Amino acid sequence: MKRRSFFKRGLLATLGTTLVPSISSIGHPRGVRDGAKNVIFLVSDGMSHGTLNMADILQRRKNGKPSAWVDLYVNNKVKRALMDTASANSMVTDSAAAGSAWGGGMRVDNGALNIGPNGEKPTPILQKFKNAGKSVGCVTTVPVTHATPASFCVNNFNRNDQEGIAQDYLNLKFDLWLGGGDKYFNSSKRKDRTDLYQSFKKSGYKIVRSRKELIELKSGPALGIFADDALPYSVDRENQAELKNKTPSLTEMTKKAIEILSSNDNGFMLQVEGGKVDWAAHGNDTPALVYDQLEFDNAVNAAIEFAEEDGQTLVVITTDHGNGEPGVFYGKKADSNFDRLQNVLCSNEWVLNQIDKSFTPGQVIELIENSQKVILNVSEAKRVLASYENIEKSGLYNPRQLPFKSLADFQEKHFSVHWANNEHSGVFVELAMFGPGAEKLPGMIENYKLHDFILKTTQL
Amino acid sequence: MKRRSFFKRGLLATLGTTLVPSISSIGHPRGVRDGAKNVIFLVSDGMSHGTLNMADILQRRKNGKPSAWVDLYVNNKVKRALMDTASANSMVTDSAAAGSAWGGGMRVDNGALNIGPNGEKPTPILQKFKNAGKSVGCVTTVPVTHATPASFCVNNFNRNDQEGIAQDYLNLKFDLWLGGGDKYFNSSKRKDRTDLYQSFKKSGYKIVRSRKELIELKSGPALGIFADDALPYSVDRENQAELKNKTPSLTEMTKKAIEILSSNDNGFMLQVEGGKVDWAAHGNDTPALVYDQLEFDNAVNAAIEFAEEDGQTLVVITTDHGNGEPGVFYGKKADSNFDRLQNVLCSNEWVLNQIDKSFTPGQVIELIENSQKVILNVSEAKRVLASYENIEKSGLYNPRQLPFKSLADFQEKHFSVHWANNEHSGVFVELAMFGPGAEKLPGMIENYKLHDFILKTTQL
Repeated sequence: MKRRSFFKRGLLATLGTTLVPSISSIGHPRGVRDGAKNVIFLVSDGMSHGTLNMADILQRRKNGKPSAWVDLYVNNKVKRALMDTASANSMVTDSAAAGSAWGGGMRVDNGALNIGPNGEKPTPILQKFKNAGKSVGCVTTVPVTHATPASFCVNNFNRNDQEGIAQDYLNLKFDLWLGGGDKYFNSSKRKDRTDLYQSFKKSGYKIVRSRKELIELKSGPALGIFADDALPYSVDRENQAELKNKTPSLTEMTKKAIEILSSNDNGFMLQVEGGKVDWAAHGNDTPALVYDQLEFDNAVNAAIEFAEEDGQTLVVITTDHGNGEPGVFYGKKADSNFDRLQNVLCSNEWVLNQIDKSFTPGQVIELIENSQKVILNVSEAKRVLASYENIEKSGLYNPRQLPFKSLADFQEKHFSVHWANNEHSGVFVELAMFGPGAEKLPGMIENYKLHDFILKTTQL
Repeated sequence: MKRRSFFKRGLLATLGTTLVPSISSIGHPRGVRDGAKNVIFLVSDGMSHGTLNMADILQRRKNGKPSAWVDLYVNNKVKRALMDTASANSMVTDSAAAGSAWGGGMRVDNGALNIGPNGEKPTPILQKFKNAGKSVGCVTTVPVTHATPASFCVNNFNRNDQEGIAQDYLNLKFDLWLGGGDKYFNSSKRKDRTDLYQSFKKSGYKIVRSRKELIELKSGPALGIFADDALPYSVDRENQAELKNKTPSLTEMTKKAIEILSSNDNGFMLQVEGGKVDWAAHGNDTPALVYDQLEFDNAVNAAIEFAEEDGQTLVVITTDHGNGEPGVFYGKKADSNFDRLQNVLCSNEWVLNQIDKSFTPGQVIELIENSQKVILNVSEAKRVLASYENIEKSGLYNPRQLPFKSLADFQEKHFSVHWANNEHSGVFVELAMFGPGAEKLPGMIENYKLHDFILKTTQL
């Protein structure tokens, strides 16, 4: 009944409504049982404190309301913690080790998926939930085989073995994966030419390849793959009709996943990843970053709305590590500069992909002015063009070696946003927890202790 | 009785002990009264999340225990909030406007001290406490007339009017100021040649000018001024016997202030500022930053220890705004690089002050290796020297125009610490509250609302 009324309202209603205040300060309104039945674990990958903050300011100034995440703080609905994200071999983790800490309950070396420094192979948390008769699934904006979802599913020495991870998924019999990564399932793209879609179909999976098919999906198990690699950035999807029609948003995938997984009376566990927040940070791509964080925030809203109505769902909202440590910085025009982000129509990635060596400086200026409302001068436009010739190292997720850093450097004075680096940081991260059991969260927690915390809270 | 037993243990005992677990999770162990009698408000000025984090990591790896601040989270002793630090005219505040938000309960424009955008003159919080019969005072590592302490004391259109602020202090009859700023009190340095020390003495103040005199101080009112401008950085003081003998540490000043102010049976309010955390961030001076944050952390420990024993003291631990958004960043040698900070003997400021144009590159290399355990190559040493000739703008608090940025850039790869900027940020900051009433703190608070929160909690 409760479940149905949540879905009846539909996406638009969800996005527009304010969260209903709960009786308890940490979202345990009905006291249905001692402990949680369901878990929704939301990860804005690579989210520094400044990312959460800039998305919130943008949301307040553009739409007149706080972000859903910060609104949970304003209304005292969650327990907060700082989380120490170190891996087994470094104070600065990668996403595989960070996810494995949650997924397997122990710290592993960077790059590994639930394989400990001494060869330990802890059972990933979604396997534990599946074995307990619950439905399980993952939703992400990057390949479903990428480090963060994979860390809840499999054991693998190497996060980069995404073809192998895709193969492993077939044997897990999980209920749902929604995200990108066609190149790891498609026979024409895989090295071994295996048609994994066919294999999944044979195992009873529905194969979903477009937003329309996702909307029509009524039950699992399902494998939904919507892009060759990662899905587009939210700011690009929002402003390009073709992308918007073809590709679901993170929130749409999240709502569909909750709808399908929650049909199991035994409960469910869902991981939701805003995976491209991290990719944007690696490119110091401020427009991409703030809008992907806001899309993640919409998914948070959807999860909390379900959990408030359901009363038996533990919601974890966090990130696996900081990245870039961006922020809006002091200056006479800081406010008006930052407000320019309200009007950008595309990511830096999109802009840089449009430019080629045939462009004149005038064409560069026009392109960036039209798409990002930022006016470069001729010298800056020339330097952007020159940076295609003499490319600097521009971080991860940059196969075309686009000059992300060059554009980001020019944007600093236009947006008043600065970045410390284009890599992961070891800064403690923000964690919010809602629902039954959340009140037991300590104020500071090491990432790997969350695993047992969740098992205890769900009495597994 | 309680007060006496706190002080009997003395400084060494305080620094070495673990906090005694309290019954309540937010430090209200004895329930002596409804609300707090005393307030200790501690500000690590310009502390980004990464600053809190790096100091904690340094403390754990060097001394095997967490920072006092983070330990409060580990043991669930405080209520935490994110704080929105915006000023009346910008999403990025300065210290005057940020302090005024707390001090006067309203947002003012950057640069102003408790003068609202429409000329409002709210009564500063320490005047309110003084009028209620409580003792009040300020402790800081920068001039006592600087923005943060001044924002709790006076109304002034211009934070830079530090001579005027010193004069105003004379009329306030507060119990204690301890910090720097001789140039604003000394007749030979003030523009108007007024001897303010003489005026304070005539008003019944003890004038304290050295660490020894501070140790011997038994009661207020007192004006303690220990430096021409700001006090030395903690890392320099710790490693230079003359500075250490002459100048008290922030913790020593804090303990003395608590001792003197708490002798009033009506209660007290004390502001404690780690003011040079902000100055270090403006210089991207990583060695200065982490050790001044750790010294602030010692002061936090002293305040909490008093408050745990006293049971009637509200302790607020926070910062007025982020600055620089530094962090330790990913790289194969991140851990060993960061660990070099355990062995640095001086701030970048101190190093840069030693170098002059007569230095050879070899002498620069030797100086930095000996004092900071970092080995520059010849080309880097040449560039440090060259940067004295062609100085870049290096932020605030740099009267000698030292090339802070140049040295900081070279240090990135040695410490694995990167900075986004050398200015204030608008990133939401961390706030922790301990003691009676702390449990009412919401998870997110605008800075100016703390003013009324404190008045309500102390029933003023």
